Amino acid sequence: MGEGFPVRIELKVQWGEMDAFHHVNNATYLRWFESARIAYFEQVAANAHDVSPWVPILARATVDFRRPVTYPDTVTVEASVRKFGTTSFTMQYRLTSQAQGAVAAEGEAVVVLLDPSTSRKMPLPEALKALIAKLEGHARSAQRVHPGEARPTRG
Amino acid sequence: MGEGFPVRIELKVQWGEMDAFHHVNNATYLRWFESARIAYFEQVAANAHDVSPWVPILARATVDFRRPVTYPDTVTVEASVRKFGTTSFTMQYRLTSQAQGAVAAEGEAVVVLLDPSTSRKMPLPEALKALIAKLEGHARSAQRVHPGEARPTRG
Amino acid sequence: MGEGFPVRIELKVQWGEMDAFHHVNNATYLRWFESARIAYFEQVAANAHDVSPWVPILARATVDFRRPVTYPDTVTVEASVRKFGTTSFTMQYRLTSQAQGAVAAEGEAVVVLLDPSTSRKMPLPEALKALIAKLEGHARSAQRVHPGEARPTRG
Amino acid sequence: MGEGFPVRIELKVQWGEMDAFHHVNNATYLRWFESARIAYFEQVAANAHDVSPWVPILARATVDFRRPVTYPDTVTVEASVRKFGTTSFTMQYRLTSQAQGAVAAEGEAVVVLLDPSTSRKMPLPEALKALIAKLEGHARSAQRVHPGEARPTRG
Repeated sequence: MGEGFPVRIELKVQWGEMDAFHHVNNATYLRWFESARIAYFEQVAANAHDVSPWVPILARATVDFRRPVTYPDTVTVEASVRKFGTTSFTMQYRLTSQAQGAVAAEGEAVVVLLDPSTSRKMPLPEALKALIAKLEGHARSAQRVHPGEARPTRG
Repeated sequence: MGEGFPVRIELKVQWGEMDAFHHVNNATYLRWFESARIAYFEQVAANAHDVSPWVPILARATVDFRRPVTYPDTVTVEASVRKFGTTSFTMQYRLTSQAQGAVAAEGEAVVVLLDPSTSRKMPLPEALKALIAKLEGHARSAQRVHPGEARPTRG
Repeated sequence: MGEGFPVRIELKVQWGEMDAFHHVNNATYLRWFESARIAYFEQVAANAHDVSPWVPILARATVDFRRPVTYPDTVTVEASVRKFGTTSFTMQYRLTSQAQGAVAAEGEAVVVLLDPSTSRKMPLPEALKALIAKLEGHARSAQRVHPGEARPTRG
Repeated sequence: MGEGFPVRIELKVQWGEMDAFHHVNNATYLRWFESARIAYFEQVAANAHDVSPWVPILARATVDFRRPVTYPDTVTVEASVRKFGTTSFTMQYRLTSQAQGAVAAEGEAVVVLLDPSTSRKMPLPEALKALIAKLEGHARSAQRVHPGEARPTRG
């Protein structure tokens, strides 16, 4: 799948999210990533009428801290599904500090699907993969502007 | 009811609970009080076989901050029900810093009971009041022991 | 002072702020109130060039929970200083759920001023009171505008 | 270095740490790991009189979720430094649920050292590496007891 991030949320940094180092505490990043992950699920679920019920479980989370975030700031958190496994998929996050105009963190999550009727891992439903691919495709095409279009022509 | 605190928990202060002022952030106190409140409910519920089902709802919470708490420390959080209303009761908290050997905060909660079948306020069941009074009575007698009473006499 | 709230912030409710009761956890309200309190201080401090240095300390916090907040939602948190004491002032909060179109909580904080050079309570500087009164006055007049008064007349 | 975990803390799970899925929220794991990391630093720092000043910065954090943790429970969080880099080291965590008698999560952190005078990365001081190796060595020997030594001999 592509390079874009089809889902994006904005969150105001709260003063109380900083710890004694005067930086937003590292645990807050997982909270922020979670908010983007859930926004992603909501976008998929809105069209998932034909997908058999599934429960997403966080199996692995990684945060790469690039630069500290401090109050006041607003962060943009973007999410994208990058890879399908048999019973899981991998989500990528990008966290941008608007005050710094720079990426402050990146992250990854491995999400496993459980069948709610058995509480066991289930293979990714094809219909779900199609919905995700469609969402990701929109992100890709929004970012992959054809050279000819991108170059403004001057008479 | 009495002056004692029949329920007491101990919690280790975590470094990450401190904010940019190098003190435990004020919001954490509500978390700690909640933990004591739930420990209280558990003690009551353990004997509440004859009490009609009730759901406790926090209607009002107050914290009086006496002195800042910093890491490392362990706090003792005590809870006591001080007053019965018609559909509510008032719980009192005391938070002690073990490192400072001093009360760091006091607090109060007004807890309203909901009837789970109607989601409306319900009068305090007499059986519940009796269980609370008993728990509080134990706390009182445990703290106001007269010398003569403390010595168990054997015939 | 008036009835209005001169400072207002908006915060997105995050899914992870809900607890096992499927409501935003009560401790989060103190975090939200803190964010409004600090926004208030920032507005005052921006004009406080002539005020002797002061450190605000939270001495007492109260939350009145009116109705539960759930994800997804955005809350508006408003703050106003309602009363001056000798070494403290009282701040009032109002928390509105945009999804419910209703006040979800109200709150109060007693803030004590410390002199940073002595770490002792200090009397409220008159210049600070004037800045607060001015900020509150703007809120009042912004809300109690009579049609005729709103139009500035030029001789 | 070895397989043992020289530093171990115990933390009570708090009810309010659970989210709407009735499990402890994933962000809490980074808080818990942080508490173990800081306990580790404290043990090293207690003997680090000859080590040039260093500031540890979290560059990367990973959590592998093995099984959900629920209230009530007490978790054991263990930390160990597994690998030295040039300007960083890698810490490993193990989180055990006492109620379940099972590992609930594992984790890893890459910690970079900053020179506080320049705010730039610094090579790991040899004296620091020696202190860590000593701490890790104690853990190893404490866990690799030879059968013959483990059995207390009675005259």
